[in-house]
Amino acid sequence: MEDGEKREWGAKAWTYLSSVRSQSPLIQCITNFVSMDLTANTLLSAGASPAMLHSPNESPDFTPQVNALYINVGTLSDNWLPAMELAAQLASKLNKPWVLDPVAAGASCFRLKACLDLISLKPTVIRGNASEIIALARASFASTKGVDSSHDSTDAVEAAKSLANSSGAVVAVSGAVDFVTDGNRIVGARNGVPMMQKITATGCAVTALIAAFVAIDPSHAVEATASALAVFGVAGELGMETARGPASLRTHLIDSLHGLDQTAVISGVKITAI
Amino acid sequence: MEDGEKREWGAKAWTYLSSVRSQSPLIQCITNFVSMDLTANTLLSAGASPAMLHSPNESPDFTPQVNALYINVGTLSDNWLPAMELAAQLASKLNKPWVLDPVAAGASCFRLKACLDLISLKPTVIRGNASEIIALARASFASTKGVDSSHDSTDAVEAAKSLANSSGAVVAVSGAVDFVTDGNRIVGARNGVPMMQKITATGCAVTALIAAFVAIDPSHAVEATASALAVFGVAGELGMETARGPASLRTHLIDSLHGLDQTAVISGVKITAI
Amino acid sequence: MEDGEKREWGAKAWTYLSSVRSQSPLIQCITNFVSMDLTANTLLSAGASPAMLHSPNESPDFTPQVNALYINVGTLSDNWLPAMELAAQLASKLNKPWVLDPVAAGASCFRLKACLDLISLKPTVIRGNASEIIALARASFASTKGVDSSHDSTDAVEAAKSLANSSGAVVAVSGAVDFVTDGNRIVGARNGVPMMQKITATGCAVTALIAAFVAIDPSHAVEATASALAVFGVAGELGMETARGPASLRTHLIDSLHGLDQTAVISGVKITAI
Repeated sequence: MEDGEKREWGAKAWTYLSSVRSQSPLIQCITNFVSMDLTANTLLSAGASPAMLHSPNESPDFTPQVNALYINVGTLSDNWLPAMELAAQLASKLNKPWVLDPVAAGASCFRLKACLDLISLKPTVIRGNASEIIALARASFASTKGVDSSHDSTDAVEAAKSLANSSGAVVAVSGAVDFVTDGNRIVGARNGVPMMQKITATGCAVTALIAAFVAIDPSHAVEATASALAVFGVAGELGMETARGPASLRTHLIDSLHGLDQTAVISGVKITAI
Repeated sequence: MEDGEKREWGAKAWTYLSSVRSQSPLIQCITNFVSMDLTANTLLSAGASPAMLHSPNESPDFTPQVNALYINVGTLSDNWLPAMELAAQLASKLNKPWVLDPVAAGASCFRLKACLDLISLKPTVIRGNASEIIALARASFASTKGVDSSHDSTDAVEAAKSLANSSGAVVAVSGAVDFVTDGNRIVGARNGVPMMQKITATGCAVTALIAAFVAIDPSHAVEATASALAVFGVAGELGMETARGPASLRTHLIDSLHGLDQTAVISGVKITAI
Repeated sequence: MEDGEKREWGAKAWTYLSSVRSQSPLIQCITNFVSMDLTANTLLSAGASPAMLHSPNESPDFTPQVNALYINVGTLSDNWLPAMELAAQLASKLNKPWVLDPVAAGASCFRLKACLDLISLKPTVIRGNASEIIALARASFASTKGVDSSHDSTDAVEAAKSLANSSGAVVAVSGAVDFVTDGNRIVGARNGVPMMQKITATGCAVTALIAAFVAIDPSHAVEATASALAVFGVAGELGMETARGPASLRTHLIDSLHGLDQTAVISGVKITAI
């Protein structure tokens, strides 16, 4: 039975990846300087079309043409924030899916507020690590109901559910196990290898991949998000077989993502409802 | 006879590459955030000296010292456009060759206008893909003579010739076959492998290489441009022999570019007049 | 005896690397666009935690949390300079070590003045190549005592001592042999391979590694700096054993840095007092 569920998820993930390859969705990326190279190469290797256009002078012409928008606040500045907000507004208004990576959400008041402002523009998916999601969930709570010290014990899963409910977004939390929730259901993905955390921007890259998967099927964002996380993880597992360190793992991960076949995806994907 | 022409072009391309290695031309690069790493590594591997300086506070001091200027509008913003325009003006005034990569020229009105403004500053070479060159040729035409619906059937070669004639630049169109034209002659280069399009910024990188080759011999920009395109393609073909996907191809392409010897270039380069 | 000194330095370098791995110091990086990827991956591979946050809106909240600050002026603009200055001021005020990479210091008046302004904010370490350090030493001298033409013959070691004395920083000069001086002692590190200069941003990356080593032991900046230079060089030497060109060397260097063990460091590090 659990085997049946696993295979079903594998088949679903394969369908998403195949569709990205055949439809090559156009993904507008407004992301940080560190991650642009890996993000673009991840999308290309998966079969999507990345477009790193961010200027407010261009989004009114360009965002209507894209299949999804990806926003990542890694190297945030007050120059870039209005560009992110405008593109997110356009995507929301046009009913295009958009995905937020709230990198280091709690690192400063400016950044936390910027993330909350972006979240008010209705992202389809938010993906972060545990501390980012907890910071956002607490701040969302605090901003509406005051700081509740009982929240100090909030763990990442509860924080994710709370953030999903308050924002309307699907929320994914990366970690040893990745969780995806719409505030109600929780799905877990158990792929990937620890050394992926020794490569800069793997988190950013997988969030871009989520945008490509969600572009294919915006009305099933939980499934698309879990599938993207698992597929990227499977590519990492295959890459690890011949890696000799983080830099060769990066190379092999991208090569593997490009070469993934149906058998590797269906047998490799480890997603289960929780 | 055709064999003779092929060998002649191979010898020419080798002469350019050898000269880049021995003279190490200094190339000022004002390029997009995605491509900076690959662009710098491409120039270094070919033997040139990249310098990623863009600020209008610096170009008046720095542009006079360089051997060529490379401008790429990939991640354009209204912050960066004046920097590009100033450097292009300086290069033109100083009779230094400069090369334009009009990435995604048709993606927005802002971008199209920015590219046309840059083209009015007399680039030595413009390199783009078919849709970029067609967008520019149509817009150039439209801006001087009104939109002519007969232009809807313009193919890339006609667009390139038209843009070359209206701008005075040598125009290169990348594709399965690369074309280079000064508006009169057309030269084709048939090197490279399809997987290079799955690596972000290979187009940007080869345009930078064109700048390095043109720096060596500004008065023969058709020859220098075709040679750069072919040499980069030969490096890609050699890299493909051991690549297992786009990321290892990127690594092997740069390694091959660094290691290319006379035999590989002369036997590998596939350039012909068309 | 010299063997004893070499082993002692090897043991010291190993202690620094081990401490970086176990303490994972948080390094705020305000660096150029070209080097962000390699810099972050170098720090991660060494065991440190990079954070590419630069905005003046964030540094007042964030800089107090970091273990060291790294500033690199590679793609300088008047937008970024105030961000660098603010972070440097904060670091100095908080007694956090901070390290400056004055890329291309002499390329323009704007850049030279920016570097001198940053140096007045008391960096712990300055690392550059010979021409950068000579440009800074001459300008520092000129700005206080007028241009002295006898300085035209200043070589890099004398320039480094002079800059160290005038600035209060430890100064490192990269080259075939790397020198480190506090204005009094001089230590030389003889690791690395020439092909590392064919990879963009290796200089930037090793300066970031210096910041991580200095974060561990700020009161012995000469030792920490020499150790970082030597350890990075050893990783390059090991990487070179299987490299086929600059791009595979980059991959293998990072892999080697991640995998370095005690024997490799102690037997490989070549540091001596001069």
